[in-house]
Amino acid sequence: MFELDPRLESDTIFLGDLKLCRVLLMNDSQYPWIILVPRVSDIMEIYELSDQQRQILAEESNQVTALLSKEFSADKMNVAALGNVVSQLHIHHIVRYQNDPAWPAPVWGAKVVKPYPEKELEAVCSRLRNLFEQINSFDSQ
Amino acid sequence: MFELDPRLESDTIFLGDLKLCRVLLMNDSQYPWIILVPRVSDIMEIYELSDQQRQILAEESNQVTALLSKEFSADKMNVAALGNVVSQLHIHHIVRYQNDPAWPAPVWGAKVVKPYPEKELEAVCSRLRNLFEQINSFDSQ
Repeated sequence: MFELDPRLESDTIFLGDLKLCRVLLMNDSQYPWIILVPRVSDIMEIYELSDQQRQILAEESNQVTALLSKEFSADKMNVAALGNVVSQLHIHHIVRYQNDPAWPAPVWGAKVVKPYPEKELEAVCSRLRNLFEQINSFDSQ
Repeated sequence: MFELDPRLESDTIFLGDLKLCRVLLMNDSQYPWIILVPRVSDIMEIYELSDQQRQILAEESNQVTALLSKEFSADKMNVAALGNVVSQLHIHHIVRYQNDPAWPAPVWGAKVVKPYPEKELEAVCSRLRNLFEQINSFDSQ
């Protein structure tokens, strides 16, 4: 049975589920930052998924990347499956700007996380849920 | 027409071509580190590829990740498309160990690059070309 890693749970806000992946907002106001977690138990690496699951993951990751890039007018998207700290398979999708606090370095560990102020968090969650409604399978319940 | 970015060219060694991607070894002896570059001109993001190209990329990335993980007994694989410095689309595939110099941080910018000594470089290139021969389309010419 799929259970979200407690560290991911505490660092993020639930936005919804796609056909395969849970969609989470990283609670760091410095970058629009979405994490996809395939709802499959005991998986650390993409190659451990079935062929069909990998195809769905690639498609969902691609849709999320393209939507974020356009919505937030990204200079560059960073897409990464690292998992050195939290081993449960999760894929980062981060909107980068040439004037963001970590540019051009990767964001991980670059700057202290700055959680969203409460009202801003509500607004960004609402904006992102609306955005991902463009993906057919998205369910924010 | 596809041309490899000069920065990528100077940092890496050509190992071969797959159906879609050029296969490069990052010349940093601290981690087994393969970079795949789709041989398509003027592409910065995965979502700019055609559906078919994205499917092939996902498959080639997956094959390379699985082969590296097994051959080098990885503790974790890091797979990432960043491109903040070199914007030409390229995907990192890095074998990570819990005792490598950067663990658990991402490798980019963590430590000064240590190029392979000449003999070791020949040996690792030969080992990797042999490994990737397991992928049907691999051509090291």
